[in-house]
Amino acid sequence: MGQIDDTGRRQTVRRVTVRRVGGSGASAAGEAEDVVATEEPLEIRLGYSRRDGSRAEENVSITMRTPGHDEDLAVGFLFTEGIIRGRADVQSVVPRGQPAPNGLVNVVRVELTPGVTVDFKRLERHFYTTSSCGICGKASIEAVAQQGQFDIAATSMCIGADVLGGLPAALKAQQAVFEQTGGLHASGLFDVSGAIVAVREDVGRHNALDKLIGNALLQDQLPLAERGIVLSGRASFELLQKAKMAGCPIVAAVGAPSSLAVELANEFGITLVGFLKPGRCNIYSRPDRIV
Amino acid sequence: MGQIDDTGRRQTVRRVTVRRVGGSGASAAGEAEDVVATEEPLEIRLGYSRRDGSRAEENVSITMRTPGHDEDLAVGFLFTEGIIRGRADVQSVVPRGQPAPNGLVNVVRVELTPGVTVDFKRLERHFYTTSSCGICGKASIEAVAQQGQFDIAATSMCIGADVLGGLPAALKAQQAVFEQTGGLHASGLFDVSGAIVAVREDVGRHNALDKLIGNALLQDQLPLAERGIVLSGRASFELLQKAKMAGCPIVAAVGAPSSLAVELANEFGITLVGFLKPGRCNIYSRPDRIV
Repeated sequence: MGQIDDTGRRQTVRRVTVRRVGGSGASAAGEAEDVVATEEPLEIRLGYSRRDGSRAEENVSITMRTPGHDEDLAVGFLFTEGIIRGRADVQSVVPRGQPAPNGLVNVVRVELTPGVTVDFKRLERHFYTTSSCGICGKASIEAVAQQGQFDIAATSMCIGADVLGGLPAALKAQQAVFEQTGGLHASGLFDVSGAIVAVREDVGRHNALDKLIGNALLQDQLPLAERGIVLSGRASFELLQKAKMAGCPIVAAVGAPSSLAVELANEFGITLVGFLKPGRCNIYSRPDRIV
Repeated sequence: MGQIDDTGRRQTVRRVTVRRVGGSGASAAGEAEDVVATEEPLEIRLGYSRRDGSRAEENVSITMRTPGHDEDLAVGFLFTEGIIRGRADVQSVVPRGQPAPNGLVNVVRVELTPGVTVDFKRLERHFYTTSSCGICGKASIEAVAQQGQFDIAATSMCIGADVLGGLPAALKAQQAVFEQTGGLHASGLFDVSGAIVAVREDVGRHNALDKLIGNALLQDQLPLAERGIVLSGRASFELLQKAKMAGCPIVAAVGAPSSLAVELANEFGITLVGFLKPGRCNIYSRPDRIV
């Protein structure tokens, strides 16, 4: 029961044996084969210069992710956390170490350009405590303001409401794995015509967006001034934080936004759309970009 | 646009002004009032004994959460992370400090019973690196095995497949906030008759489950040997890890499980159900508990 088959070429899904209750036809009750989205830990290691110029390595994070585009994930994570500032900071990104018993390489090393220094305090999540107003959403937004390097408020990108309504279907059409498992979040990058120009999937929605932004960074496409981000699920503070870091003017979510996502979008002039479906959506901030 | 109204008595939702595109009747296009789920940071502080008997305080986590049941969340987090071992470790749990400008108290302090010591290394997420097989799902599961104190495999709880199918509706009936915002994850505790005996909601699904387990711990109801957990969304490794820590034999999710969730459930003898709806579900492990 539930035995995992690691022999498939694709590591993004795994076969399991399930017992079905109910259903009919091909999915009738009984023992059956099914596929689930792969979830495995990824360790992100950073190679960087000490102040005296010597090289050092640090394990900066272990995250549960769906294998695939690990290089994008590592670079996107480091960028949205404020550890690296752009493409020029990255010398190389390589999988590292021995494969685990299941054949996966679960470590990726980001080598920074010589001379680039790192502020590891940013990773320690203690930045709130330096705020004068204590622990609150306002302080969280102030912390994002200190980190972000791109001004979004003045970005002129506009998109038609009808074009926006086509995004969920366009995203889903490119979600090969989601179709099979129903278990993956997706983040997509779209242009003003509503074309999806990049998609990344993951069991974790933060990872899916970090992969998307990391890919854009590696292609030197930041800031995303003429691109929007479409999310398959809900929009939380952290997802809007990442969009802000990437300089993206429009975030459109199929699901609901949180209060702090709305506050952050208002603060930085991001157009935040929620409950997006064909012919219908809610616009929570900067509606002037939807025409 | 999108202004936040903090004057409501309930802090779990906030009013915002939205522009609706499309729709009809009460939700016709135009400016409208809407409510969104509140998301605000919570700092969890721990009061504990040093080895020499003197008292100390440590900030152990800042998590984005929906206000409400903060005490449950703090205690549940500390328990599922392996920092505390049970009800006897907790002397008191109190909100702390000045309210933030929006009126919320966003710090909660858990005071441990004098003499209880703490292994802060557990919080550093470096436990993977001590595993002989490196970074992989198997090592992650081994780490859970070292932390968990309850044996689930021999637990005899059984439930009817028809009773199981009624859980999503029963959970939703108790999700007051979700009904309003569509933006909250829910975790519910159910008994063998299918009755929902406790529900907790949060913008973060890990938080919703930590609140549920923290509440059970504070009522000295652990292990959850005769209780199942129903999840409004997907089932990831971390949610199964928390269920294992709480000694819960059945986890039933409305959404899809990940591969590592299935592996963990198999390893510890948890019955994992996915894609749960009336008259239909998939059972990924230990189907003998569903009759």
